[in-house]
Amino acid sequence: MTQAFKLPLRVYYQDTDAGGVVFHAQYLAFMERARTELLNAAGLDLACMASRRRVLFMVHEISVRYHLPARLNELLSVSAEVVKIGRASLVFRQRVERGAELLVEADVTLALVDSDRMKPARMPAELEQALLK
Amino acid sequence: MTQAFKLPLRVYYQDTDAGGVVFHAQYLAFMERARTELLNAAGLDLACMASRRRVLFMVHEISVRYHLPARLNELLSVSAEVVKIGRASLVFRQRVERGAELLVEADVTLALVDSDRMKPARMPAELEQALLK
Amino acid sequence: MTQAFKLPLRVYYQDTDAGGVVFHAQYLAFMERARTELLNAAGLDLACMASRRRVLFMVHEISVRYHLPARLNELLSVSAEVVKIGRASLVFRQRVERGAELLVEADVTLALVDSDRMKPARMPAELEQALLK
Amino acid sequence: MTQAFKLPLRVYYQDTDAGGVVFHAQYLAFMERARTELLNAAGLDLACMASRRRVLFMVHEISVRYHLPARLNELLSVSAEVVKIGRASLVFRQRVERGAELLVEADVTLALVDSDRMKPARMPAELEQALLK
Repeated sequence: MTQAFKLPLRVYYQDTDAGGVVFHAQYLAFMERARTELLNAAGLDLACMASRRRVLFMVHEISVRYHLPARLNELLSVSAEVVKIGRASLVFRQRVERGAELLVEADVTLALVDSDRMKPARMPAELEQALLK
Repeated sequence: MTQAFKLPLRVYYQDTDAGGVVFHAQYLAFMERARTELLNAAGLDLACMASRRRVLFMVHEISVRYHLPARLNELLSVSAEVVKIGRASLVFRQRVERGAELLVEADVTLALVDSDRMKPARMPAELEQALLK
Repeated sequence: MTQAFKLPLRVYYQDTDAGGVVFHAQYLAFMERARTELLNAAGLDLACMASRRRVLFMVHEISVRYHLPARLNELLSVSAEVVKIGRASLVFRQRVERGAELLVEADVTLALVDSDRMKPARMPAELEQALLK
Repeated sequence: MTQAFKLPLRVYYQDTDAGGVVFHAQYLAFMERARTELLNAAGLDLACMASRRRVLFMVHEISVRYHLPARLNELLSVSAEVVKIGRASLVFRQRVERGAELLVEADVTLALVDSDRMKPARMPAELEQALLK
């Protein structure tokens, strides 16, 4: 659907663990950064959505496969691509790469939630439009 | 195989995000604590394994489903159970619960890795024995 | 004033970095856990304070000295002690110890803030009473 | 000494807490990123220093003052400036800013440590040269 959005990032000490590699849960944080930047690039500001429209994207399901570890001070690229838009959900395909090497990949399903009632909310038409561009 | 190991924990500000709930990647950190305590209870010290035997458990695959969010200052319980022991891998089933409510569940596959060569390592017999107890 | 409150904790991979030791900012997260448990023990629930009274404790100033590093799987103790109660602030003295060894110590000043206006708030009398017990 | 190095960054959900603002310890992580990029810009790769020269920079002392909070999706700038080079230590002055507003400032003292013996190491001449440029 949308083209894959790519965010470059560097690995700092804060991202690594005593195994000498990036801590496994930190790749999910990297992926959140890429999703947010994709949404920002589409004109969707999560902070505004939360405060004005009272909707949040909550992570509903993730499946991650770890192929190769990233290490301190390496430059990585994290991609996000919307692969499915449902009535109240979005599915992203995401990859963490080091040059041509695939390190980690994941499918991430977000549910749109009404933040006052914490119940599923229907995708606003303009949000869907913005994502389809 | 092994009985489910349970670790109680409290939700602090550091675990939450601006959505008012626990940040999604943080549940994976909670689950790592429970796996480590299960291994410690089985007599397997990850720090010794890393320094003496030169083996690490690396996360290879995770699938997580998020059902309900946890909030600031709540008391949770995180369980870990070994559901499969392979030649060079371990599969854990893990749950984050608040009382009787299931909040998050995951299957986590760890690969045993030789930390000098970063290649798969065979499960030592005593490690397998310890886990089967 | 109050007696030092002590919270035991274990060092997990998530707390460490590629230097093989606990990441320096993580000790501040450990200290937050001890402050929260001290407040809980005094009957002060931060989540209730935030939602009902609309007040937050915001960190205003920290000075930390790092003496010795903590490592993977070690058992530590984190203490918190209220050393000063001001009209709109609290000062904690905190220590991270491994047995008899002092690893890290800090003075942490919190300001009480009205969460709607993000302005300093006066310490409610009952909060001061609870802390003096 | 060196000119202040500036790193732009965005605030993501992962950086915030349930108070709706950036979690206080996370600013120290932001500051670590700016120090690392300053060192990289000076030709000093922390990963190489750790693996080849067996030296680490360990945080020895930090004093932080928090003036204003940062919020979700804001664009910040984090600066790092070397203000003192000792025989075995470095002092950085660091600021987190949002446009012209100063949010957080800190003095951070790093000690150079021999990673095999975990004892203070003398600053190599070329490292000092690189930092003075």
